[in-house]
Amino acid sequence: MRYRQFFDDALTRLRDERRYRVFAHLERDAARFPLATWHHDGGAVDVTVWCSNDYLGMGRHPAVVGAMREAAARYGAGAGGTRNISGTSHPVVGLEAELADLHGKPAALAFTSGWISNLAAISTIAGLLPDALILSDAANHNSMIEGIRRSGCEKQVFRHNDTEHLEELLRAAGPERAKLVVFESLYSMDGDIAPIGRITDLARRHDAMTYCDEVHAVGLYGPRGAGIAERDGVMAEVDVIEGTLAKGFGTLGGYIAGDTAVIDAVRSYAPSFIFTTALPPAVAAAASAAVRHLKASGEERARHQARVADTKAALLAAGIPVMANRSHIVPVFVGDAEACKAASDRLLERHRIYIQPINYPTVARGTERLRITPTPFHDAARIAELTEALREVWRALDLPTASRYAAIAAE
Amino acid sequence: MRYRQFFDDALTRLRDERRYRVFAHLERDAARFPLATWHHDGGAVDVTVWCSNDYLGMGRHPAVVGAMREAAARYGAGAGGTRNISGTSHPVVGLEAELADLHGKPAALAFTSGWISNLAAISTIAGLLPDALILSDAANHNSMIEGIRRSGCEKQVFRHNDTEHLEELLRAAGPERAKLVVFESLYSMDGDIAPIGRITDLARRHDAMTYCDEVHAVGLYGPRGAGIAERDGVMAEVDVIEGTLAKGFGTLGGYIAGDTAVIDAVRSYAPSFIFTTALPPAVAAAASAAVRHLKASGEERARHQARVADTKAALLAAGIPVMANRSHIVPVFVGDAEACKAASDRLLERHRIYIQPINYPTVARGTERLRITPTPFHDAARIAELTEALREVWRALDLPTASRYAAIAAE
Ligand SMILES: Cc1ncc(COP(=O)(O)O)c(C=O)c1O
Ligand SMILES: Cc1ncc(COP(=O)(O)O)c(C=O)c1O
Repeated sequence: MRYRQFFDDALTRLRDERRYRVFAHLERDAARFPLATWHHDGGAVDVTVWCSNDYLGMGRHPAVVGAMREAAARYGAGAGGTRNISGTSHPVVGLEAELADLHGKPAALAFTSGWISNLAAISTIAGLLPDALILSDAANHNSMIEGIRRSGCEKQVFRHNDTEHLEELLRAAGPERAKLVVFESLYSMDGDIAPIGRITDLARRHDAMTYCDEVHAVGLYGPRGAGIAERDGVMAEVDVIEGTLAKGFGTLGGYIAGDTAVIDAVRSYAPSFIFTTALPPAVAAAASAAVRHLKASGEERARHQARVADTKAALLAAGIPVMANRSHIVPVFVGDAEACKAASDRLLERHRIYIQPINYPTVARGTERLRITPTPFHDAARIAELTEALREVWRALDLPTASRYAAIAAE
Repeated sequence: MRYRQFFDDALTRLRDERRYRVFAHLERDAARFPLATWHHDGGAVDVTVWCSNDYLGMGRHPAVVGAMREAAARYGAGAGGTRNISGTSHPVVGLEAELADLHGKPAALAFTSGWISNLAAISTIAGLLPDALILSDAANHNSMIEGIRRSGCEKQVFRHNDTEHLEELLRAAGPERAKLVVFESLYSMDGDIAPIGRITDLARRHDAMTYCDEVHAVGLYGPRGAGIAERDGVMAEVDVIEGTLAKGFGTLGGYIAGDTAVIDAVRSYAPSFIFTTALPPAVAAAASAAVRHLKASGEERARHQARVADTKAALLAAGIPVMANRSHIVPVFVGDAEACKAASDRLLERHRIYIQPINYPTVARGTERLRITPTPFHDAARIAELTEALREVWRALDLPTASRYAAIAAE
């Protein structure tokens, strides 16, 4: 059997579809954020990163880095075991208290990633309900879909952010059926925001549980950075909130917050939580420092939103097709996989600007895009530099202008 | 619908079966390893940890801690994105090169945990083979079982470490069928070791691929710490080796090493790799330092084996029922869930020794045990202390002695 051939063929398929990805080898620089060193062809040059999910630059915040360094010196580099063996470290216990408080819930549980927190929590919660029906937003993230699949429960998909469709499905399921509504607060590719209040209203009326992924919102929205549900005043209505420590909070890990019994059941039943090493104390301490800082300080959030608004305005004024939304994500329409890759390559090679292409399957074919994420550290000079670079690339590659995009979008 | 009730009931079921776990809240102390501070009832006392999976104490090694601290200062606390977005950091690239070299393979891929590396790799590798049959050791770890399940492939289980049974299944499957043999090199609960050479021989004869989890062996065995396959001189015969960075290497993360096409296919296809934030540069740098150190130094391995031998000898001399094996795991037989929990509690409360109970479902009912893991830092005085403590607990709780255990085991 020529085993190797199957893997070669699989890679060839990706190349043929222009979906083979080469990762840029970057060296982050905490002192010069958002600059990084790009290692390429044996050389190394400075580039400006415009697509980081360290949305607020908290990964370089002195309090966060300091907490990590101090905890590493004090506790060592790792957890030393699963939560049950010796992984329930002082900093992890503290982090979970910090997160429960952030979301105004009685309990929280930390995982080594947001991906795993969705897999573990959704599969366990739905699995413990009798014959549960999961109602899932059509745009949900892979990790949520994996959790749903792993639960073995029946799933029905409602049209993205469409509460009328959701209501239809809730009504059809009937009051006797256990129902779990699974959705995100802020969808990271389009940057659109869920009507959380309407969803939780429906869930209450039709007696369903709600599970909301706030991965792209925690740290960034709400008076204390708890996310969109906090901003909208409906945090108490959401049964389980899931978040990451790796984006707005700049470190690594994921979590859920909710009712004590629910959290304890996930802790006690989820194999993907039980049978793996816990977060290192140093990572937990760094994450706690980020959460704590952003609870008290709104400055990063205010500056972030201002930079985002400036970036959108500058790009639109230059005729670059920014896809409209009310969030911090600045998607720029390209609409073709090869052109998207070419634009990204040209930005990097000619302009020293790093924005990776977003192609199928992350987004639908025909909606390929560059996904730009300004941080509080992308100042006016950088925004002007980005605008000029995109203008040059758009001209050179003859990419869709804002008006051509408006026509396409209106179709 | 009284949703809460379902979770309360689930927890009650665990309590009724004496399977409800309370995690000990521990504060590791890098300077005084294997001592830790146990936070309990509002107080805090020193305890000796005798069950860490930081088997060599590398989590507190100055080179490892130093690398983490330095990288945190230089690169910041987090990766800032998935591997594709901005997570392919300089330290992660270096770590993967280090790991490929460790196992003598052309390529390696790092994940945020060993658990995820098994899920991602097994499901993707088996999934890319046409109609693959997975042959799985009966004692395989949960993460491997999850990977097999996620692949959707047919699975046949062979009796634990039973190569005759494996051969039967291989022969029955026939030469035309794609076959993947999935097993561990060292099983962490019994401490027994797989006949890797015999398994790879069979796989070659029957044209099967092999996938070996060396999670409990990497760092600990072999001239450069690559594991049991290296020690046995059969590393080149194993197609894919999976390991963790969180046990022998003392940090966090997991990995696979193997042929370039296989590794690239997992990198390119596995959603559990693609859709999650990468390891922080600081964690990757710490892990690299541990791997590098243990490639060059055999001192930790030698001292580790010596302490293990001393511990086993001391316990056996005291009539404590050590379950025989040829590895660094020292399982002590109890054979009853409640007695096991009581022994663990008494060790902690009365003797300030932390060894968590291993009960069903981690091990079969009737084989409940304490799982002791001496490190190079458990010196003669600590071994004597442990022996005395176990003697006292065994007497007080009337637990099975070595001779009673021998009689049970012979049955
Ligand atoms: C909506 C959503 N949920 C969960 C995750 C996973 O979070 P993490 O990167 O912490 O694994 C991501 C992206 O990474 C995401 O976009
Ligand atoms: C055999 C085996 N494989 C994989 C894992 C998972 O490794 P990690 O803790 O790095 O997730 C474990 C235990 O944690 C294990 O015992």
